[in-house]
Amino acid sequence: MHISEITHPNQLHGLSLRQLEDVSRQIREKHLQTIAASGGHLGPGLGVVELTVALYQTLDLDRDKVTWDVGHQAYPHKMLTGRYNRFHTLRQKDGIAGYLKRCESQFDHFGAGHASTSISAALGMALARDAQGENYKVVAVIGDGALTGGMALEAINHAGHLPNTNLMVVLNDNEMSISPNVGAISRYLNKVRLSDPVQFLSDNLEEQFKQLPFFGGSFTPEMERVKEGIKRLAVPKVGAVIEELGFKYFGPIDGHNLEELIGTFKQAHKVSGPVLVHVATVKGKGYDLAEKDQVGYHAQSPFNLVTGKAHPSNKPKPPSYSKVFAHTLTKLAENNPKIIGITAAMATGTGLAKLYAKLPKQYIDVGIAEQHAVTLAAGLACEGMRPVVAIYSTFLQRAYDQVLHDVCLQNLPVFFCLDRAGIVGADGPTHQGMYDIAYLRCIPNLTIMAPKDEAELQRMVVTGVNHTDGPIAMRYPRGSGIGVPLMEEGWEPLVIGKGEILRTGDDILLLGYGSMVNTALQVAEILGEYGIEATVVNTRFVKPLDTELIFPLARRIGKVATLEEGCLIGGFSSAVVEAFSDNGILIPLKRFGVSDNLVDHATPDQSKADLGLTSPQIVEQILQVFFKSPQPSVMS
Amino acid sequence: MHISEITHPNQLHGLSLRQLEDVSRQIREKHLQTIAASGGHLGPGLGVVELTVALYQTLDLDRDKVTWDVGHQAYPHKMLTGRYNRFHTLRQKDGIAGYLKRCESQFDHFGAGHASTSISAALGMALARDAQGENYKVVAVIGDGALTGGMALEAINHAGHLPNTNLMVVLNDNEMSISPNVGAISRYLNKVRLSDPVQFLSDNLEEQFKQLPFFGGSFTPEMERVKEGIKRLAVPKVGAVIEELGFKYFGPIDGHNLEELIGTFKQAHKVSGPVLVHVATVKGKGYDLAEKDQVGYHAQSPFNLVTGKAHPSNKPKPPSYSKVFAHTLTKLAENNPKIIGITAAMATGTGLAKLYAKLPKQYIDVGIAEQHAVTLAAGLACEGMRPVVAIYSTFLQRAYDQVLHDVCLQNLPVFFCLDRAGIVGADGPTHQGMYDIAYLRCIPNLTIMAPKDEAELQRMVVTGVNHTDGPIAMRYPRGSGIGVPLMEEGWEPLVIGKGEILRTGDDILLLGYGSMVNTALQVAEILGEYGIEATVVNTRFVKPLDTELIFPLARRIGKVATLEEGCLIGGFSSAVVEAFSDNGILIPLKRFGVSDNLVDHATPDQSKADLGLTSPQIVEQILQVFFKSPQPSVMS
Repeated sequence: MHISEITHPNQLHGLSLRQLEDVSRQIREKHLQTIAASGGHLGPGLGVVELTVALYQTLDLDRDKVTWDVGHQAYPHKMLTGRYNRFHTLRQKDGIAGYLKRCESQFDHFGAGHASTSISAALGMALARDAQGENYKVVAVIGDGALTGGMALEAINHAGHLPNTNLMVVLNDNEMSISPNVGAISRYLNKVRLSDPVQFLSDNLEEQFKQLPFFGGSFTPEMERVKEGIKRLAVPKVGAVIEELGFKYFGPIDGHNLEELIGTFKQAHKVSGPVLVHVATVKGKGYDLAEKDQVGYHAQSPFNLVTGKAHPSNKPKPPSYSKVFAHTLTKLAENNPKIIGITAAMATGTGLAKLYAKLPKQYIDVGIAEQHAVTLAAGLACEGMRPVVAIYSTFLQRAYDQVLHDVCLQNLPVFFCLDRAGIVGADGPTHQGMYDIAYLRCIPNLTIMAPKDEAELQRMVVTGVNHTDGPIAMRYPRGSGIGVPLMEEGWEPLVIGKGEILRTGDDILLLGYGSMVNTALQVAEILGEYGIEATVVNTRFVKPLDTELIFPLARRIGKVATLEEGCLIGGFSSAVVEAFSDNGILIPLKRFGVSDNLVDHATPDQSKADLGLTSPQIVEQILQVFFKSPQPSVMS
Repeated sequence: MHISEITHPNQLHGLSLRQLEDVSRQIREKHLQTIAASGGHLGPGLGVVELTVALYQTLDLDRDKVTWDVGHQAYPHKMLTGRYNRFHTLRQKDGIAGYLKRCESQFDHFGAGHASTSISAALGMALARDAQGENYKVVAVIGDGALTGGMALEAINHAGHLPNTNLMVVLNDNEMSISPNVGAISRYLNKVRLSDPVQFLSDNLEEQFKQLPFFGGSFTPEMERVKEGIKRLAVPKVGAVIEELGFKYFGPIDGHNLEELIGTFKQAHKVSGPVLVHVATVKGKGYDLAEKDQVGYHAQSPFNLVTGKAHPSNKPKPPSYSKVFAHTLTKLAENNPKIIGITAAMATGTGLAKLYAKLPKQYIDVGIAEQHAVTLAAGLACEGMRPVVAIYSTFLQRAYDQVLHDVCLQNLPVFFCLDRAGIVGADGPTHQGMYDIAYLRCIPNLTIMAPKDEAELQRMVVTGVNHTDGPIAMRYPRGSGIGVPLMEEGWEPLVIGKGEILRTGDDILLLGYGSMVNTALQVAEILGEYGIEATVVNTRFVKPLDTELIFPLARRIGKVATLEEGCLIGGFSSAVVEAFSDNGILIPLKRFGVSDNLVDHATPDQSKADLGLTSPQIVEQILQVFFKSPQPSVMS
């Protein structure tokens, strides 16, 4: 059977083991080809091909529900649920999303993008099922990396307390999050995973037996029988911790053996109450290069399947903001042993792997645990260290209370570096870094800044590290800088709360923030063609806002536009209109930013165009609002 | 030694057991007297008197650091660290704070108010210590309730992975959070706590032995010896789960036996790496009534020590918002089995205990686990239930990402009920509900409302339950309603996004939100005495804002004041100025709310006066800003 004929996962029910193996092979092939062609998450999906096929072979997906944690390992799921034929559009505008989405398919029972949510959602579904007197199955599939996120443990704690609520958790244990896992839970799972359950414990037991005076060094046949009996009863079962937490434990099983998987799932479905099936998988399975470099092949730009190398890009790109950030921080850390870089399982993404390589003692990876990362930083700051917490804008949402309650209320000098702030492109709505300006701005004691380019980012890294009066946050975009020259050392810190004028003109004042400062300059350039002269301010700090600089300009020029790559509600522009209103500056103002809608996956340029945030679109709007659409003077 | 002579905790070092017992007695006495006189947390502190005395007897607090989780059990700590003589000012304006505060004492090493943060902070301190080559002790004291919060588990996971980092966690196990604990971890701890370790396991073993064919029903002396040997080696140790997570386990020990406590702490200090000391305490210890009713005596208004009853108040108060909320929800739930009320260990505080009493199947307490509570609700909503999540404004910060990523991005109909929104009084900065309007307003798909009084709250409960198009949030204040008549049934839902005009006048437009609508009416009344006629709008919804109603009024009247009990940055007033600016309504506007500072503990009235939010203060400001301070017409 060709997989393109599978439009409903229940079609797997009638297939033989051999046919299922063939389907698995086809999924893996399509998976590899698609990611090689258009980029996406490679390792996670390859690791769960058999897991997905086997699980769906044992479920009735017209009734049963499955929640996939994070969602980046759900590509095989997508191919088995009617999306094989459109799978080549993965992560492209109007194509298949890179994560799960309830609006994309009836089989995407719960959307995700952030980690550790699947058990909570599944338990909610299971409780809803029971309240309504129904009896379908509910399954959460979660990786061992995501399992260490606090909310997954909260859910385990709750589910384990409900012996009458049927719920299956499938632990997809590949010994990795995106980076290699850290933490005691992971170590425990590895111990379990790597052992033949009986063998492991009986060996141990035998050693211990020999030390007892009664048994001495040798076993009589009778004693052998005692030993066998004891093994059956007294040795702690593999998975004892999980059983203490109220789950029945199945495993560890080979995640690439369909027969074992199907057999175990079937058996586990028969058990009532919460059940955990521990599946040992290999991230990147079936693609040699990915199996060998599991971090490198977690997610990929388009690449050559044979060499495994990314396609060379047509023109050399400037280094990414993340890279410049990590490089600068590492340089500073070399001369300042108090600097500690902290990541939550994003060593590569944030660039902090570089810090680790050079200065491993000044680096902490806490695993998928943003909350703990932030309060750990608070503790470090209490005792005089300079913690630098690098977390994506969207993931810092997970640690909002810790930023507010543990760091800012106590005015502790923690430096938050928000990577991927603004439009993120192909990852879509769950990963857009749209809200940080709004959710941080209301917090007392916090200084908030954004660099106009990668060179200013370098200065802001110094500024943040030097700012010992209280907490400070910096946001910067995903992807490449704009190509300005960088310095290897000697960066000057900025004055807190001070912006700069980049261009002067009397007709309109453009206030740019962060990545939109460059757009403001382009807009000014184009406006000049219409004979309209703009003053452009690089605001740098949204808090405190440089009202000393901005107010006189605004009063004199009388027309203002604000430009930001973030939500308009409560964001940078909101700070400006609040300040203007409070100070009686009642002048026309147009706000450019992200309106109150979700931004779907697409390229960043496509998203910007959809949002009306390209330079020509902004010019057009400005002309319409402020200048009744004159013609370009060069053309007249 | 009288405890008033203890100004430094190290003074405990030289004391005999008998003297320490005497100090403990004095702490307990002062604790009881103070809470009886002025209110505060009763049970938590009484439970840790001996724990605190014993721990401090074994520490050098000139060097060692202690983080107390939540902080509400740290009253004995306060009395031993120089604050005994001022302890009678507890929770009063300018007096001793009810929680820990770094600025209050050098011995408050980490502030708290929210649960589950202590291990993260302590681990941060321990890592800072090691990075700086120092060698003091770091101890986190955490309750069994707080231990189930996700971030505490994240911290355990991290600490357990660092065998060379000395850190002591003292588990204050009183089998309670504020409500009785729920969850598998709690059940596990109880099992451990209630058992004599060897006895428990050997009993179990003997039973199992008897079922083996080899042993049959009876034991020969030889076999007895085998059994003894086996007990020593094969049975899992008490605390095995904790040891699997990388901690060395001590306990359970009697939390009211100073000798046992001191001995164990001393022994545990000698061990390297992460150590957990499991202390079994009795919440409310030493006050009979509190021991018997641990929920009722968790925190108290002033009460009579002999009867244990709250002092009768001088005048009957209207019912609290929480009570009206819970009553209304319970009534609705009686006729709608799809309604499920969810609390995170705040059954009494949120009033949901009432729902539980009447309809236990429509109630879920997840324990201290706000993140899980919200995503569980998302799962329930997916399958057609009507989840109502009641969480204090300040604690919903802990679930910010779940509100955004799991509920709102998927547009799921979850009803968030934010209790204690606005000024909270004696609990102080960690508990102020100041930020919710700002942090929620930027989230797409979310409807946000606040009732002007307890009768409107009833209508909003119906509105929220009926709103199946997407997520909706309601905020309401701590404490009593304003005394308007309530209905027992038949509440009419409100139209989403529609405000109402309460009073008309041509001189100024007052836009009130939630609890400040009543203040706006009082302000209008007083302004009337000056001959100034105000229009007062009850805005009801901050999102969507009723611009159809507000814009024409604003344009006609030309002067506006906004009134809210929340942060001015990004809050209700920010929504108004954004809307005005976007629509070219350029008129003078004055915003009343909470400026960008922390609000300390005090009575709510004192806080309001400090913030300039009483009616006379607002009137004065309005006269100054808009009317150049005329005299009251009645007096002229």
